[in-house]
Amino acid sequence: MDALKARLFEANAIGMAIAVLDWDQQCNMPHGGGAARAEHVGVLSKLAHESVVSDETQRALEAAEREVDPNTVDGACVRLTRRGLDMETKLPGDFVAEKARASAQAHETWVKARTADDFEAFRPTMEKMVEIARQEAEYLGYKDHIYDALTDKYEEGATKKFWDGMFDQIRQPLTDLVAEIGKKPAPNDAFLTGNWDEAKQREFSLKLMEAIGFDMERGRLDVAAHPFCTNFSVGDVRLTTRFQEFLPTSIFGTLHEAGHGMYEQGSPMEWDRLPVAGGVSLGFHESQSRTWENIVGRSKAFWKFFYPQLQQTLTQFQSISMDDFYRSVNKVEPSLIRVEADELTYNLHILIRFELECEMLEGTLAVKDLPAAWNEKYEKYLGITPPNDKDGCMQDVHWSAALMGYFPTYSMGNILSYQIWSELEKSVGDTNALMEKGEFKPILDWLIDNMYQHGQRFQPQVLLQKLCGGGLDAQPYLNGMTKKYSEIYGL
Amino acid sequence: MDALKARLFEANAIGMAIAVLDWDQQCNMPHGGGAARAEHVGVLSKLAHESVVSDETQRALEAAEREVDPNTVDGACVRLTRRGLDMETKLPGDFVAEKARASAQAHETWVKARTADDFEAFRPTMEKMVEIARQEAEYLGYKDHIYDALTDKYEEGATKKFWDGMFDQIRQPLTDLVAEIGKKPAPNDAFLTGNWDEAKQREFSLKLMEAIGFDMERGRLDVAAHPFCTNFSVGDVRLTTRFQEFLPTSIFGTLHEAGHGMYEQGSPMEWDRLPVAGGVSLGFHESQSRTWENIVGRSKAFWKFFYPQLQQTLTQFQSISMDDFYRSVNKVEPSLIRVEADELTYNLHILIRFELECEMLEGTLAVKDLPAAWNEKYEKYLGITPPNDKDGCMQDVHWSAALMGYFPTYSMGNILSYQIWSELEKSVGDTNALMEKGEFKPILDWLIDNMYQHGQRFQPQVLLQKLCGGGLDAQPYLNGMTKKYSEIYGL
Repeated sequence: MDALKARLFEANAIGMAIAVLDWDQQCNMPHGGGAARAEHVGVLSKLAHESVVSDETQRALEAAEREVDPNTVDGACVRLTRRGLDMETKLPGDFVAEKARASAQAHETWVKARTADDFEAFRPTMEKMVEIARQEAEYLGYKDHIYDALTDKYEEGATKKFWDGMFDQIRQPLTDLVAEIGKKPAPNDAFLTGNWDEAKQREFSLKLMEAIGFDMERGRLDVAAHPFCTNFSVGDVRLTTRFQEFLPTSIFGTLHEAGHGMYEQGSPMEWDRLPVAGGVSLGFHESQSRTWENIVGRSKAFWKFFYPQLQQTLTQFQSISMDDFYRSVNKVEPSLIRVEADELTYNLHILIRFELECEMLEGTLAVKDLPAAWNEKYEKYLGITPPNDKDGCMQDVHWSAALMGYFPTYSMGNILSYQIWSELEKSVGDTNALMEKGEFKPILDWLIDNMYQHGQRFQPQVLLQKLCGGGLDAQPYLNGMTKKYSEIYGL
Repeated sequence: MDALKARLFEANAIGMAIAVLDWDQQCNMPHGGGAARAEHVGVLSKLAHESVVSDETQRALEAAEREVDPNTVDGACVRLTRRGLDMETKLPGDFVAEKARASAQAHETWVKARTADDFEAFRPTMEKMVEIARQEAEYLGYKDHIYDALTDKYEEGATKKFWDGMFDQIRQPLTDLVAEIGKKPAPNDAFLTGNWDEAKQREFSLKLMEAIGFDMERGRLDVAAHPFCTNFSVGDVRLTTRFQEFLPTSIFGTLHEAGHGMYEQGSPMEWDRLPVAGGVSLGFHESQSRTWENIVGRSKAFWKFFYPQLQQTLTQFQSISMDDFYRSVNKVEPSLIRVEADELTYNLHILIRFELECEMLEGTLAVKDLPAAWNEKYEKYLGITPPNDKDGCMQDVHWSAALMGYFPTYSMGNILSYQIWSELEKSVGDTNALMEKGEFKPILDWLIDNMYQHGQRFQPQVLLQKLCGGGLDAQPYLNGMTKKYSEIYGL
């Protein structure tokens, strides 16, 4: 095990160096650094791959597999190393290089075609990307459905059948709820847009992060074009946000990333630099960002505590009531763009992408028919028709990178956040009473004790069983949505 | 050569990743990231060493040595790679590890002993460090003097004899000049200390950097506890500064680091990631930081242009005349602490260290006698006696890391800056007339054309010959000092 750990520490050091280079590129790097940075990351990625698949690592892993009790923390490291190694070795080097090359080219083509709203210019590239995703699935292997091979990378154990089951639970109730809300007058949210002082937005974001429990001794907040969370160790978690005219972008963006960040900070320090530290899957990770962004951050109790402070920091809100503010940040509106969607319609955007990418991988939907199929589904689920492909089927970066099987983890995060929260409430009691007083520690402590401190020790479905005593269940989410929006919209 | 370049690119990627990790540690890293960061840098340093000394690199280097014309750029890469490889291989792995371990421990002991002003507590550690420096010199090898082996690492081709020659030129004239100045009334500089707005200090520092020609598209300025310049490529040069109550710290600190930075930015882009890019030696590097800090930045012409802007940014200066300001930033005062010393006395601080470290390495000065010898030399050269060892022989970090042979490059920088400047003036003409108008481009262009663009292509002494048509000459520096201070002090 010591031999294996030495190999894992090496891979960790190279991987974390790449993460620092990437963070620096997004937060600090001057324009002139781009060319060399790409070369440096290329070399380090190659070294990381070589370290993981080296004979030394494989021998140490095989020995550890024979000797280590799978039910221990070391055993979890062994299992995770095997999973990673198998993924690295199943894909031939030539394929990996070809995918990287094609994706880089595809990204450029996508940017241009999207700007020009020219799907036909993007079509051959998109066909190539579907082909690459199919090839990758074949290399990785699957039992039932081609989708299973791809989605397992992001959510261990998930399959098309698993996602079908999840979406079947929410498809109709969400569509109905959105339609019902559409009949009611929308809350005013014009006052959320303004020429806000950046320093004050930053001050307020930092206040929220610290209040909910993000440890600033083990992390920081920076500005980047796209908000993200990364970490270089359990003790060094970096969040980014952006400060724009639409105030919720920074407030809820920061809470979202802080949720990811607190999950990472919650791993035991002694697991640092080992694969067992960190979030267990994309779905679980998203459940925590969504918990702190939506269940906590968009609750009335939260703003009962923080709204007076917001009014002090940004005095423009002194003429707006807390109730109007609360309604404005919970406005539901079917819209074209996923990344701008509200908490409720978001899952319908994901559902559409899941259905379409399954069909493309199966071959039942030809890429040339994607725009029409996309628009049809937006009409069906959201009641709106995209006026162009730019803000339609070309809006996301994912497919241009052959990234398929990833989208459903976003919906799983939303659903799981409410499922875990309903368990939390059984122990912690009246969370609204706590949040009204600005007391978040009992909430965070429960999450650390029951979830964060387990890192990746258990497989996602095992962790879910431990946490909630069963499988994924959308009912708490649906109940939460119905309760919240019935009150806000007077349904 | 292509095979060698591939190896060099790998070593460069790992080395630059370490540089980014170090920069991040000094500028951004939260406290909690320290432990993992140290481990990551440790692993990467080992990988860097392995990459440099690998059989693959050695074979590629030997082949290139047979094939490549030494007078080409590729030839310079080959020569520099050989120099680096020899240094890496001459030191046994055990010795390198022992030195790193002992230095880390020595650093802690030094911090504690210095705080407690307890030289006796530091003495055994210092003895160990001298011993390590001696061992290192033996491993590296030398012809004439043990000092030669160590100093060549920082200034290729320099020897004890070379430094003796340099210091012999300046020892007496500087001591005399300092003594003469001491008889005159000191300029008032109380107004340089204040509670300056940090944002305004930053704004003014950035203005100066950009005005003298630092390319912000290929670099940036951050805040760190100790000012430094590092770079990750020719296109990405990072400076740091600090904002304190003593205003010159940020102004001249920024100009100093910008000088280092512009030298790095001046390498041809096509040499990026190869050993031939970058500054040629520590002495040459320091000559450029000193040029922009002192010859340019402390000149009257410079402030004729910038002082009105400073008065606008920091309105407290509106009641201070330009002449008083100019005299205040050129105040000469024998003092205890090297890093706070003025342009003139600085070289005497270095001279003292050079003489002492030579004697310790030779064995003519025992470590136990260091405090007395130190104080004696401060009395002799600067006319002051340190009241304690904390601000005496324990003030610098260098010796606690077995770093000997390094100090003289600081003095070489000061001397060389004036020697190069006098050549520059032959071509560029009246530099004061240019600077008064804020025109720095002709100055920077000459430096790029004659020096920066050559990177490390030529050995330091060859470059000096090309630049100035001879060896190191302290006369321009002595002339410059005499002229400036005669005017300021009315000598």
